[in-house]
Amino acid sequence: MADPLFRRLALLGIGLIGSSVARIARARGDLAAEVVVNARSAKTLERVRELGIADRIEADPAHAVAGADCVMLCAPVGAFAALAEAIAPHLAPGAILTDVGSTKQSVIRDVGPLVPAGVHFVPAHPLAGTEYSGPDAGFVTLFENRWCLLTPPPGTDAAAVEWVAEFWRRCGAMVQTMDPAHHDRVLAIVSHLPHLIAFTICGTADDLEDESRQEVLRFAASGFRDFTRIAASDPVMWRDVFLNNREALLEMLARFMEDAQAMARAVRWGDAGYIEDKVQRGRGIRRSLIELKQA
Amino acid sequence: MADPLFRRLALLGIGLIGSSVARIARARGDLAAEVVVNARSAKTLERVRELGIADRIEADPAHAVAGADCVMLCAPVGAFAALAEAIAPHLAPGAILTDVGSTKQSVIRDVGPLVPAGVHFVPAHPLAGTEYSGPDAGFVTLFENRWCLLTPPPGTDAAAVEWVAEFWRRCGAMVQTMDPAHHDRVLAIVSHLPHLIAFTICGTADDLEDESRQEVLRFAASGFRDFTRIAASDPVMWRDVFLNNREALLEMLARFMEDAQAMARAVRWGDAGYIEDKVQRGRGIRRSLIELKQA
Repeated sequence: MADPLFRRLALLGIGLIGSSVARIARARGDLAAEVVVNARSAKTLERVRELGIADRIEADPAHAVAGADCVMLCAPVGAFAALAEAIAPHLAPGAILTDVGSTKQSVIRDVGPLVPAGVHFVPAHPLAGTEYSGPDAGFVTLFENRWCLLTPPPGTDAAAVEWVAEFWRRCGAMVQTMDPAHHDRVLAIVSHLPHLIAFTICGTADDLEDESRQEVLRFAASGFRDFTRIAASDPVMWRDVFLNNREALLEMLARFMEDAQAMARAVRWGDAGYIEDKVQRGRGIRRSLIELKQA
Repeated sequence: MADPLFRRLALLGIGLIGSSVARIARARGDLAAEVVVNARSAKTLERVRELGIADRIEADPAHAVAGADCVMLCAPVGAFAALAEAIAPHLAPGAILTDVGSTKQSVIRDVGPLVPAGVHFVPAHPLAGTEYSGPDAGFVTLFENRWCLLTPPPGTDAAAVEWVAEFWRRCGAMVQTMDPAHHDRVLAIVSHLPHLIAFTICGTADDLEDESRQEVLRFAASGFRDFTRIAASDPVMWRDVFLNNREALLEMLARFMEDAQAMARAVRWGDAGYIEDKVQRGRGIRRSLIELKQA
């Protein structure tokens, strides 16, 4: 077995992603010799202790990062600025500071300026998730054959970037480096907009008068159900994602709304050719995904 | 084993639903003693012959319905008016004319006036589907534990309605009778709108400049993929559904668009509470589905 990449890995936040990383570190010996977990709530930390997925739990993030050669922010991205402020003076020289947030420009904006000289800041985003959250939700195969995108700011130490890349490869992920603005734009369309739409349509259904609402639940299997699965995800995490990828998300949403209005117009005026063309394109995309084995 | 419900069942159209019914009729002996299949294309009929799922194939719908005590329209709903016109003079007295279309007011509008006296018209809609279509797509368990909604017009013979209900129960479905306008409204939100949205977002992604489009495919797993599955369905069928449930679909789409605009506004102005509330409601609906075992 390879040597552990890190002597001490500090996970700040222990939801689906963090607790999957902790479990993988436990299952394989080559990620970190010691895993320290910090979370905001005492209840979560107690649960982590019960689950036995950390070597040590720490209620204070400053204590958690002391002596760690890798610190990973696994909280909702809206909490990153305050976390970074709390830990910055306590980061060990030469340590790697990384994260798993779904928005990368905001992380660079919020965390970047607080990173002390000599600490390597390597923002990352593993593209993996389920509709479950919390320390019980994690599992060791979460990242297998999934992408992890790294968005190091210009001038980041190449060895530190490679260290983080190797970390994710050992977790089972495929790694790609990407410009942070491009990351936010791509994620807006593949992930953030679909989630926003799913939450919205669930709200639209929830607002129906009572009789129809009951029947929405009863007959949900016909398409709506797939949206509710997406919409079952963690509220705080998604609130933070939307607010921290505002520009790209609003642009993609505006494009989508224009397209939906065009579809509405085609339905109203009976433009069969337009509708058929749009449906055909949906099939085309699905076919491409199947060829790429992403479906 | 119970006696067959029908002596001769004529299926006009043999896609996912029709070919599943044909396979069930073959697998159990108690639906129909004889299954006659009509389809518009010679290629489809030849495929039905190869698959061995019909006792007889007929290129002319008028010949297919002759002597049948049950005629089931399984084509896209946009083809129903022409089909009804073609078969009306050839329907046997006392026969049941039913269908499997996803829009019920349009079927009653298009087919109802053409039904000869003495023929029982029982519109039906089994809520079952996959993203696959055509005679190869059907399978015997498609309707198991799924709903089939019957929307008989006022004055329909109660025995004929019960006959159709029993047919679907033998196919494994749960049966409920519903007002056609109410059916169209409920289906607009649980099925037609989700499909319209899924087709639309696939088009939005397909319109992105080439680099982003490639990455949409590469990173689709993060939410977008679920939309593409819905969007892979049959274009002609869905075109017809949208055009034949226009009013209810446009109303639900308008409600959804208002809600999406409100969400966009909350994202733009940083209204965290609003966003969190909407996400919470999505979770609530998902939880209700799980309790109802619809998830």
